[in-house]
Amino acid sequence: MFPPSIQKLIDLFSKFPTVGPRTAARFVFYLLKLSKEEIENLTSAISNLKSTIKICPFCFNPFQDDGELCQICANPSRDKSLLCVVEKETDLISIEKTKKYNGLYFILGGTVSKLKKEDLGKLRIKGLEERIKNQPPSTAKRGEARDEAKPQRSEIKEIILATNSTTEGQATALYLERLLKPLNKKITRLGRGLPVGGELEYADEDTLSSALEGRK
Amino acid sequence: MFPPSIQKLIDLFSKFPTVGPRTAARFVFYLLKLSKEEIENLTSAISNLKSTIKICPFCFNPFQDDGELCQICANPSRDKSLLCVVEKETDLISIEKTKKYNGLYFILGGTVSKLKKEDLGKLRIKGLEERIKNQPPSTAKRGEARDEAKPQRSEIKEIILATNSTTEGQATALYLERLLKPLNKKITRLGRGLPVGGELEYADEDTLSSALEGRK
Amino acid sequence: MFPPSIQKLIDLFSKFPTVGPRTAARFVFYLLKLSKEEIENLTSAISNLKSTIKICPFCFNPFQDDGELCQICANPSRDKSLLCVVEKETDLISIEKTKKYNGLYFILGGTVSKLKKEDLGKLRIKGLEERIKNQPPSTAKRGEARDEAKPQRSEIKEIILATNSTTEGQATALYLERLLKPLNKKITRLGRGLPVGGELEYADEDTLSSALEGRK
Amino acid sequence: MFPPSIQKLIDLFSKFPTVGPRTAARFVFYLLKLSKEEIENLTSAISNLKSTIKICPFCFNPFQDDGELCQICANPSRDKSLLCVVEKETDLISIEKTKKYNGLYFILGGTVSKLKKEDLGKLRIKGLEERIKNQPPSTAKRGEARDEAKPQRSEIKEIILATNSTTEGQATALYLERLLKPLNKKITRLGRGLPVGGELEYADEDTLSSALEGRK
Repeated sequence: MFPPSIQKLIDLFSKFPTVGPRTAARFVFYLLKLSKEEIENLTSAISNLKSTIKICPFCFNPFQDDGELCQICANPSRDKSLLCVVEKETDLISIEKTKKYNGLYFILGGTVSKLKKEDLGKLRIKGLEERIKNQPPSTAKRGEARDEAKPQRSEIKEIILATNSTTEGQATALYLERLLKPLNKKITRLGRGLPVGGELEYADEDTLSSALEGRK
Repeated sequence: MFPPSIQKLIDLFSKFPTVGPRTAARFVFYLLKLSKEEIENLTSAISNLKSTIKICPFCFNPFQDDGELCQICANPSRDKSLLCVVEKETDLISIEKTKKYNGLYFILGGTVSKLKKEDLGKLRIKGLEERIKNQPPSTAKRGEARDEAKPQRSEIKEIILATNSTTEGQATALYLERLLKPLNKKITRLGRGLPVGGELEYADEDTLSSALEGRK
Repeated sequence: MFPPSIQKLIDLFSKFPTVGPRTAARFVFYLLKLSKEEIENLTSAISNLKSTIKICPFCFNPFQDDGELCQICANPSRDKSLLCVVEKETDLISIEKTKKYNGLYFILGGTVSKLKKEDLGKLRIKGLEERIKNQPPSTAKRGEARDEAKPQRSEIKEIILATNSTTEGQATALYLERLLKPLNKKITRLGRGLPVGGELEYADEDTLSSALEGRK
Repeated sequence: MFPPSIQKLIDLFSKFPTVGPRTAARFVFYLLKLSKEEIENLTSAISNLKSTIKICPFCFNPFQDDGELCQICANPSRDKSLLCVVEKETDLISIEKTKKYNGLYFILGGTVSKLKKEDLGKLRIKGLEERIKNQPPSTAKRGEARDEAKPQRSEIKEIILATNSTTEGQATALYLERLLKPLNKKITRLGRGLPVGGELEYADEDTLSSALEGRK
């Protein structure tokens, strides 16, 4: 139906999250209306991504500056005894927006519905274990002798498994909970309860039980 | 458009909660197909409601037996130091279904969006204040001298404002909180957090803040 | 959970079209708040339905007056050569509201998804065949000698199968089309096309084909 | 919140049709996970679009081959007396998929809600008038003397205004209808009616009127 170079781009856009072939086609027709400059602007922005964005070696958060760690991990005022495990980058952003969390993060890279080896292999589980066993990233300024940076030495004391409250998210949290248990750290999950706008009448029994238990 | 006796019934059904004129019309056409016996069965069930159902003088929960109080208020094993204030009867049912609450209830009779005298007048606010000031219902068996039922004497220690997490529900809870403050009781609200099935990405900041604070 | 007289009424309301147990419970709590007069008003309106409403022997439309036929069938200015077969009473109302149809109706009483004898037995198929074979209802005024009412003699010339455009509706229309074919009448169906507010992008191919063919 | 090169790309993706900032962010995090080869594959596919895709000078449909016209306009077996005016490229595709239309197209480039000069200026109205006044594209093969291609000379006889059935689509069709009236061509619109799956009960009066009038 479509000319080959349109079809090729539709196929590529269809792999984007939330995009189906119909939306992908609309994307292509949108691009066809752009000027040459706008197209170049877009393709260079896409190409630059790889060269300018680094992935934080501690939390896997993408960042863009001269440091070795992302701005959160490198921030000396963040509480390095707290580690919040999230599924994906946008979940980290969601939590940052609340301004109620001052600890570190770890981006797991997904969730699993069934505990298949294959699926688990896609998550950064080994990395998570290592982060918790070793000390969190030193935020000693460059030039300082790291050995002397003793006051910054700190230990992760609480791991918050901030996966979604979906079946996949909870299965993943349960798996991590069991896996991390031998490390003898406090392991918590996000509180369940009525969301803003929620009504008792439409709340399931688990949500309502949690809301009752978590009353304050 | 409709014959008068159909239109009259459409008008009456349209006052039922969640029912609009279109659904009301479907109700009437449904009734027209019922047998005479089925119609009598329905009308006598409606008529019997008033004569068989009593409203509990303590919590306003409808009940049907010989007692003076509803089965919850009359149950000696319920914790009479807890009073859960709900908006409506079905919210009481929702909480009972969780099997996580063993205290008493008070059905407020609605919520208010703006604190207008007129709207507040429709709620059982005076009744609520009285319930809290006085002791909860005695569950002494009939025949026993009530004066001697001293061990049952108990006091409400915590008031759970279990209104919806909607604007109206929260405005009403806030109003009650201020009103009841001078009574020097512990006043709590249902915990907010991610509902079952909830995703961080779509949670608002308040919900997510509460979920973080309520982690465990 | 509920007292028996409440539960009984919940069960009865749950049989109403579109009503589930949760809505049925809300209906009962609504009734509990009504005054004795309001309850009597409702039950007598329901009881009166059977005694005041008659079902038109020609089209099965409910009506309420002294005549033998409903107001549509009895109206001498309606075109008696057109018979519109609808699934249910509210569909007749929907078509009347357009003010674009001046023929007669026949309420089939439902649709079938599979052509099972059992399901077909619930529809007024025999009645429909009879209506078409015989002449439509005479609208001679009472007192007039019917034999002389010759100019009113008329014949159904077109049968409009106005079932829904759903799978059930179309299966039923197809069944009727085959059944009525030997009667040698013009048989039509409602035109398909884009509904008001419809977009080409979201229209299925059948709808769009019909819209193209039906252009004007 | 986001590093500058991520934010820049989020801003660019947010201009794509149907994409908001949240989805745009997900697109960027998706791109960050792609390999260098996959990124190059995408950017070159976007860049190639402009160089390989031509816009048909008659109908504005994008195409990709050596010809001067798109495959539809260049196809000698298409009926050149029919011109179907659509809002956008995907609407052309939708109609082609029905396989019920064998005429030519004209992509208008949008619709207008209010007949403001500014909005109308974005549509290809002048181009449409010219197409109709002049003869449709000759499909004489290259090398053939065009002057001798007399049998191919043809004239547009019917203009189908295939805009959406939305307020904007209908306002635009009405505007075009008035504008094109002096050209003395047959002007039609897509048929309205019940869409596949549509129910009488939920159809608006206009849709149902059209369905009745368009019965067949």
